[in-house]
Amino acid sequence: MRNIDEDTITHAVLAAMSKCRDDRLLTVMTSLVRHLHSFAREVTLTEEEWAHAISFLTDVGHITDERRQEFVLLSDTLGLSMLVTTQNNRKPAECTEATVLGPFFVKGAPEYKNGDDMSNGAKGRPCFVSGQVRGLFGEPLADAEIEVWQSDENGFYDVQYADPLEQGGEFQARGRLSTLPDGRFHFRSILPEAYPIPHDGPVGRMLDALGRHPWRPAHLHFWIKAPGYEPLITHVFRNGDKYLDSDAVFGVRSSLVVDWIEHPPGVAPDGVTVTTPFFTLDYDFVLNPAEERQ
Amino acid sequence: MRNIDEDTITHAVLAAMSKCRDDRLLTVMTSLVRHLHSFAREVTLTEEEWAHAISFLTDVGHITDERRQEFVLLSDTLGLSMLVTTQNNRKPAECTEATVLGPFFVKGAPEYKNGDDMSNGAKGRPCFVSGQVRGLFGEPLADAEIEVWQSDENGFYDVQYADPLEQGGEFQARGRLSTLPDGRFHFRSILPEAYPIPHDGPVGRMLDALGRHPWRPAHLHFWIKAPGYEPLITHVFRNGDKYLDSDAVFGVRSSLVVDWIEHPPGVAPDGVTVTTPFFTLDYDFVLNPAEERQ
Repeated sequence: MRNIDEDTITHAVLAAMSKCRDDRLLTVMTSLVRHLHSFAREVTLTEEEWAHAISFLTDVGHITDERRQEFVLLSDTLGLSMLVTTQNNRKPAECTEATVLGPFFVKGAPEYKNGDDMSNGAKGRPCFVSGQVRGLFGEPLADAEIEVWQSDENGFYDVQYADPLEQGGEFQARGRLSTLPDGRFHFRSILPEAYPIPHDGPVGRMLDALGRHPWRPAHLHFWIKAPGYEPLITHVFRNGDKYLDSDAVFGVRSSLVVDWIEHPPGVAPDGVTVTTPFFTLDYDFVLNPAEERQ
Repeated sequence: MRNIDEDTITHAVLAAMSKCRDDRLLTVMTSLVRHLHSFAREVTLTEEEWAHAISFLTDVGHITDERRQEFVLLSDTLGLSMLVTTQNNRKPAECTEATVLGPFFVKGAPEYKNGDDMSNGAKGRPCFVSGQVRGLFGEPLADAEIEVWQSDENGFYDVQYADPLEQGGEFQARGRLSTLPDGRFHFRSILPEAYPIPHDGPVGRMLDALGRHPWRPAHLHFWIKAPGYEPLITHVFRNGDKYLDSDAVFGVRSSLVVDWIEHPPGVAPDGVTVTTPFFTLDYDFVLNPAEERQ
């Protein structure tokens, strides 16, 4: 410990943790320290670059608040979130694939009944969504909880305009509903549009410096829970979106890319006459039994 | 990009950076992404652990302000700072070794003349510091700038009590002076004491979870600059300190551990009579010519 140099420092840090009584923490931190040091040695990180990294992380910390999570954006844009999602959601090929949660989920979204309009005033072209939630063996799952959130026609989520919780619960284009006895669900909302992740902060500057764009292809977020099954966090993407092959957060999986059908003005699936063109999406979700992971 | 999984994600992230026009940035980020992903795969990082890490970094960001730099503490306690310091300060064995800057340096410390008392009211046992600044070949360096900062008898730096800049420049136990024509310098201050790094925040919780203590052995910080020579950031440690073998930030080097001599009350080196016991430290610094690094 009195003659630490660039080679012995890693051993010294690991030795300092030898009294840790949490085996898992020790495993994680040992790997983290080894890789962090290997990185710094591999590129011979300079003192100026280190200072820049400290300053960058400080900026990430200071822009983060209850409504903006720049550390999640950083993890998302570096592919860490998708890596963690995939390695924790290995399941049979028949099951719906998972993807990243993203930074726009918020708790407390309103409950809706099947057939309701979840847009709650959010602007966009009408879209009627339906589908079924089943288990791995085809069993329909009644009373499964479905939580949906999405962007509007400007590519913004409600929380990017203002804090719905501070404004009396005015959530828009997000909500919860339950599946019917046959596992089916249907609701009205608006067509989600492609959008850039918030890029007016340090992560945006990083993407710019790396020659990357901040766009995500249009999608609807789903979080589906049913007792006895693994919860599923995923998106359904709009086929044809120009960002499907360059999603800024690496969340696309081809099994989640679907044709959303455009219809002329007329009678919508819920029987209501719509005077503008509208879209329909029909997509089924297959959940993995929770026991599979034990 | 549409079939990303836990194995292909790394390639996808690297491919997304292919338009980066800054070669060095690309090198650094390629290594960072590879090691970050290798770490997550190696330990099969769970979604709960990922969420915990996001929350931890958020806390680190939110406790950081102009006076407290928790990201530097994190880097220091994980050994990254010392690694970066050592690999950027390779120099001939005759030169004084560098060590970490630490989080307590602040710009704008007052200027003093040789012989002045830098403590400026900070509490502690009197200490008289002297030495010489030389170049690699023994040449005395006149007018070298020496910046000093240190803890007081309670183990606190002035900035931990209050912001000196906000209080009209009341820096304590820190200051700048220049070497005399023969390269020598001398000043009065107080004896630095061992201290815990700030541990009431997320880094403190991390150390606690890892079974580590937050203490640093007592030391005096020096930052020495002379035209034509590499700047030197280092500490001088007090021999006998019980934390020399377990410095929380891994900054000790045996060449920087020195006997500080305790004297009974009497006449101090500057000719002033001191009515309490006092200490003296005499330490010479050897700078590396700047050309050596070209």
